[in-house]
Amino acid sequence: MTKPHEALYYGDYLQLSKLLDSQELKSGVNGPPAHDEMLFIIVHQTYELWFKQILWEMDGVFRILNHKVVEEKALGRAIAHLERIVSIQRVLTQQIDVLETMTPLDFLDFRDYLVPASGFQSAQWRLMENRLGMRVQDRHAYTTSSYTSRFSASDRDIVESTEKEANLFDLVQSWLERTPFIQFGMFDFWEAYREAVDRMLASDEGLIRQNPTLTPNEMEAQINNLSKTTAHFAALFDQKRYAELLEKGEMRISHRALQAALLIHLYRDEPILHLPFRLLQALGDIDENFTTWRSRHAQMVKRMIGTKIGTGGSSGHEYLRKVAENNRVFGDLINLSTFFLPRSELPSVPEEVATQLGFYWRPESSGS
Amino acid sequence: MTKPHEALYYGDYLQLSKLLDSQELKSGVNGPPAHDEMLFIIVHQTYELWFKQILWEMDGVFRILNHKVVEEKALGRAIAHLERIVSIQRVLTQQIDVLETMTPLDFLDFRDYLVPASGFQSAQWRLMENRLGMRVQDRHAYTTSSYTSRFSASDRDIVESTEKEANLFDLVQSWLERTPFIQFGMFDFWEAYREAVDRMLASDEGLIRQNPTLTPNEMEAQINNLSKTTAHFAALFDQKRYAELLEKGEMRISHRALQAALLIHLYRDEPILHLPFRLLQALGDIDENFTTWRSRHAQMVKRMIGTKIGTGGSSGHEYLRKVAENNRVFGDLINLSTFFLPRSELPSVPEEVATQLGFYWRPESSGS
Amino acid sequence: MTKPHEALYYGDYLQLSKLLDSQELKSGVNGPPAHDEMLFIIVHQTYELWFKQILWEMDGVFRILNHKVVEEKALGRAIAHLERIVSIQRVLTQQIDVLETMTPLDFLDFRDYLVPASGFQSAQWRLMENRLGMRVQDRHAYTTSSYTSRFSASDRDIVESTEKEANLFDLVQSWLERTPFIQFGMFDFWEAYREAVDRMLASDEGLIRQNPTLTPNEMEAQINNLSKTTAHFAALFDQKRYAELLEKGEMRISHRALQAALLIHLYRDEPILHLPFRLLQALGDIDENFTTWRSRHAQMVKRMIGTKIGTGGSSGHEYLRKVAENNRVFGDLINLSTFFLPRSELPSVPEEVATQLGFYWRPESSGS
Amino acid sequence: MTKPHEALYYGDYLQLSKLLDSQELKSGVNGPPAHDEMLFIIVHQTYELWFKQILWEMDGVFRILNHKVVEEKALGRAIAHLERIVSIQRVLTQQIDVLETMTPLDFLDFRDYLVPASGFQSAQWRLMENRLGMRVQDRHAYTTSSYTSRFSASDRDIVESTEKEANLFDLVQSWLERTPFIQFGMFDFWEAYREAVDRMLASDEGLIRQNPTLTPNEMEAQINNLSKTTAHFAALFDQKRYAELLEKGEMRISHRALQAALLIHLYRDEPILHLPFRLLQALGDIDENFTTWRSRHAQMVKRMIGTKIGTGGSSGHEYLRKVAENNRVFGDLINLSTFFLPRSELPSVPEEVATQLGFYWRPESSGS
Repeated sequence: MTKPHEALYYGDYLQLSKLLDSQELKSGVNGPPAHDEMLFIIVHQTYELWFKQILWEMDGVFRILNHKVVEEKALGRAIAHLERIVSIQRVLTQQIDVLETMTPLDFLDFRDYLVPASGFQSAQWRLMENRLGMRVQDRHAYTTSSYTSRFSASDRDIVESTEKEANLFDLVQSWLERTPFIQFGMFDFWEAYREAVDRMLASDEGLIRQNPTLTPNEMEAQINNLSKTTAHFAALFDQKRYAELLEKGEMRISHRALQAALLIHLYRDEPILHLPFRLLQALGDIDENFTTWRSRHAQMVKRMIGTKIGTGGSSGHEYLRKVAENNRVFGDLINLSTFFLPRSELPSVPEEVATQLGFYWRPESSGS
Repeated sequence: MTKPHEALYYGDYLQLSKLLDSQELKSGVNGPPAHDEMLFIIVHQTYELWFKQILWEMDGVFRILNHKVVEEKALGRAIAHLERIVSIQRVLTQQIDVLETMTPLDFLDFRDYLVPASGFQSAQWRLMENRLGMRVQDRHAYTTSSYTSRFSASDRDIVESTEKEANLFDLVQSWLERTPFIQFGMFDFWEAYREAVDRMLASDEGLIRQNPTLTPNEMEAQINNLSKTTAHFAALFDQKRYAELLEKGEMRISHRALQAALLIHLYRDEPILHLPFRLLQALGDIDENFTTWRSRHAQMVKRMIGTKIGTGGSSGHEYLRKVAENNRVFGDLINLSTFFLPRSELPSVPEEVATQLGFYWRPESSGS
Repeated sequence: MTKPHEALYYGDYLQLSKLLDSQELKSGVNGPPAHDEMLFIIVHQTYELWFKQILWEMDGVFRILNHKVVEEKALGRAIAHLERIVSIQRVLTQQIDVLETMTPLDFLDFRDYLVPASGFQSAQWRLMENRLGMRVQDRHAYTTSSYTSRFSASDRDIVESTEKEANLFDLVQSWLERTPFIQFGMFDFWEAYREAVDRMLASDEGLIRQNPTLTPNEMEAQINNLSKTTAHFAALFDQKRYAELLEKGEMRISHRALQAALLIHLYRDEPILHLPFRLLQALGDIDENFTTWRSRHAQMVKRMIGTKIGTGGSSGHEYLRKVAENNRVFGDLINLSTFFLPRSELPSVPEEVATQLGFYWRPESSGS
Repeated sequence: MTKPHEALYYGDYLQLSKLLDSQELKSGVNGPPAHDEMLFIIVHQTYELWFKQILWEMDGVFRILNHKVVEEKALGRAIAHLERIVSIQRVLTQQIDVLETMTPLDFLDFRDYLVPASGFQSAQWRLMENRLGMRVQDRHAYTTSSYTSRFSASDRDIVESTEKEANLFDLVQSWLERTPFIQFGMFDFWEAYREAVDRMLASDEGLIRQNPTLTPNEMEAQINNLSKTTAHFAALFDQKRYAELLEKGEMRISHRALQAALLIHLYRDEPILHLPFRLLQALGDIDENFTTWRSRHAQMVKRMIGTKIGTGGSSGHEYLRKVAENNRVFGDLINLSTFFLPRSELPSVPEEVATQLGFYWRPESSGS
């Protein structure tokens, strides 16, 4: 290994002279600076640094998943990248507590200087969304303009170029679709699953009809609900109806990928399925944490500006609240539990198939 | 002070023989227990213990605020009670992370045993809401039944009896209404505030019209938005229109209390207004944290059961999501920033009035 | 599946009538209750509930590891149990923030009523320690008495009986010792590792001697330090010296288990080693989190009682601080990084061996 | 208010082109970059940004406290600055979790490139310590060199110049010393306190001697401990002995300031003492959080490098652990509870004095 020739200095390594000279308070240009504008700048700068790190981790995942054959050896690393993103998201959410130490009145001391700049102009935030797999049609539109309309030309180019590039949703979907285990040797997962579903739905209906605490109205409501669930399951087993769900935008994930995701969850203890299970979990965590962040952020904005317009001209809280609800990428994975069955209802994997889902090396006494 | 006669033992003091013998796994009654049911029980039991503590702290606040004249000496303690609730709420939210270590599949191992029990039957949760000041009409109805319809008779009595009792919202509102400082000596806060508002609205319109990055459509949207804000402000200065907002349920807080809350925020540095400011902040924190908890909880339920019905028969996630948005008590305090003005726009308090808002004792050199 | 015959009620399921009737304020027996004693009781009760859950998860791990042949299928579940403990520990630490909302002065309102009860009498805490693998000789003695001397006879029996029972340290050690991969086919891990160590130590010495920023004194100090590291490594390759370290208590883990743990860390990307790696990580996390809790707790006690004696008669903070430093079970795993080498220095696993460390099933195109 | 002439852009405002171009991976200079070096850089850069913010908040406190007469109106703002620091510290600690997603093996991929740079070269960290009030003699020396010996000349100048400047400890101490209320009118706090102490010590001895669970050895140990406490209290009332404690370095705070801090804690409900109480609390929180951070950081380093030397040449974990214990500034405030008495033991403030500690304005009915 080559050694450093000259002595590296902490401050140079971190480029602190640049970093710590990047806070110019607009409120201070023509008058006394507003104390809290420094916080406003620093908190946004730390956000942007963390966004860069999240994008860096996403790149790591892309390098692993963007292959026809994903190396099993690399899955652990992909999960580590995703789990790091989860860990960073906890910091992002914690930082909202810090920003909330700024009271609305303190914000008013410098708010007008920032117009028309806005968090909506964070290119990295949009990059994260696009690389995650958010599509233009998934975005809650807050005006008739495009989500990139407030960007500088160069930022717009960077952001829009990622709309057509590989994204995490597509890579994960393709990886799932390639799973060979849905029909594998003598084990037809899909057939076994379908039979189990039929048994469960019949049982659920019994549960409702025998529930002594329900009023007639409530019972009717629940039976209606169950009918919807039944219809939902039915679509699983009917390619045409599934295609309709896709077309209407009620589902996004392909049928084949959904099958694989279900298999992975339901048989996660099989060694070869365990890391895939953890990868899907981590994707769900990331999706949920972005939703949590958006929701906390929307609340903070409401407290900060009430029903006023945002500095960037959005309708503020109301817009953000709707975005928090809707802008999900991996919602189908979050919703997957709709289709879960109790393990007791599932047939176990035949011994011979189980061997093939296990490790090459097996302990000698394992035959006993 | 009297001393304990016999030696107190840790386990007896905490009544551990009862406490640690209160977990009976339903899944274990007729078969092997489901491992994760213990977690499910313990996490709900710790929630209920913390709810008891929150109710205890609320009682402390009631004892202080439930007087015609609230002792200034006691305000610090009221705030301490509220800030402790905030601290407990952080634990409540953290506990969701623990519950999420239970996967949906693990939940299915015992879920059916719990029907029709449901978290909707937590009497203490409803007590907290009612004591906070949630009214029956504020609740998002999930069926045509009452929010207490699933309770046992005794729980229902306890919960419903608090609907008519003193609640935090009413006590705080009355305390605000009694503030003598809105028109105080030579200082007419309300008049000064009104003039400043007029100046600000004119300035905001200018900001929008001069914003070079807005498309004509966007500018129109923002001007519309500002019109709404202007109308909102107008209602502040027109008792009749304010009364309409109250009647329509768009506002809840009385006009007089709103004036006081605005005064307290805008002049919070005056010593006699500082602790009232902190008290209002803490109420806002509590409201926001309950919203955060509800929203995290709704997300968790979605991940746990998807679009299935809940054990108690609710439509699950969808219901919880709506509740998270709507069931707020102190929303008017959260929204108060709508009516804030930059400090630079506000007239300062005349010296003589300031003296009266300060401490009795003053440093001798303070005249200089 | 059998269905509940009678309608289960939330409050009955959680046994709330017992649970919420288990708080008797000692300060209220002969006078007005001290408000904060309720918090003191509730926080300790929630701790004890969580301790029960942690013990429950440990039991789950025991059931998996306490076999001659640990099923690979079960490893994922063992890790889930351990990661849940980690998640609970975050709540335990967060609860300290809540307890700290009680000021020392508030504590004094009821402290004397508690004498001589003490947190040292928490049987479940000692059970956790013993089941984790803490030995009597590992405990920092705060008096000449045994750590169980303050227990009731029945608690003492329960706690002391676990001293001889299986504990997590022993089970993990045995499991590590059985790893067949240390010398596996044509791959002699230990020989390869030893050669790499020699190269690295030579390189490290160079790094120090060429560091231009070191004063002569500092350079001498670092060379001394490196000599210690070298001696430490030497013990790894000399069974007699390693035995001495064990005897002196400087190491606890057996040589064979240490070899396995090193192999697992250094080659964690091999599929069959990845979950073992995560299991070791989780054990390190648990150890670290207990240390963090102890350290936060010691600080809190210092702030609460200063240098006074604790209610149970310990010297309070000073004792707790020492315990926080010393009472570790998996310290050897935490320290393991001492013996790590950069991946670039390690020989890669021969293809044929790698196959055996992979899954039985392999993609057809994987030969390319 | 003057308006921005040209449209402000988010990315320009935050100077993102500089900020996001400040990460140069040393591992990438002569070869493929080590993925985790980006995390290492980003996490340190966010730390440095937050340090800048903490220093900014400290400046705010300085501006308020650095006056002969501290305006009561400004105390609320000083507390807000300090509480914001507390909130930032929670993020600092949370970030350790993120850094811990980097395993020791990943660190080894680029560690050697960093030599001899080291976190010991963070000038802002030392600035925070010095501005807080850490003195050269308080620092745990890790070599015979000065704590600034590794700094560049300019960093060293900046850091060392703050050794002689105003620091928070001195400002708070002076502010405390000026409190006029220790002997105030007809209320001699110090005399009343002294009498109460005598009563309490007698009572504590009784508690120990009547404790039936203590063995003779334990009782002796506790009586010895109480003797130390008694001696400690005695020093409070004996200026000569107090001077000795100061000289020996066992105490740092002046006698007069200690008296004031005790008064403030014991009579915190008096309106004029309440914000001072909160200010002291916040200082204690800050001190405790730095200790927590140092302790978590020391643990993380242990796990990362074991007993190896740090990149900057320190003995790593062992040094950091000692620093975590010893480098405290407000330890006397943390320890203050040693001298607290139950409120029931304290004489109440005479009505006339209480009036003077209250607000100028009093409700008319308050005479009743």
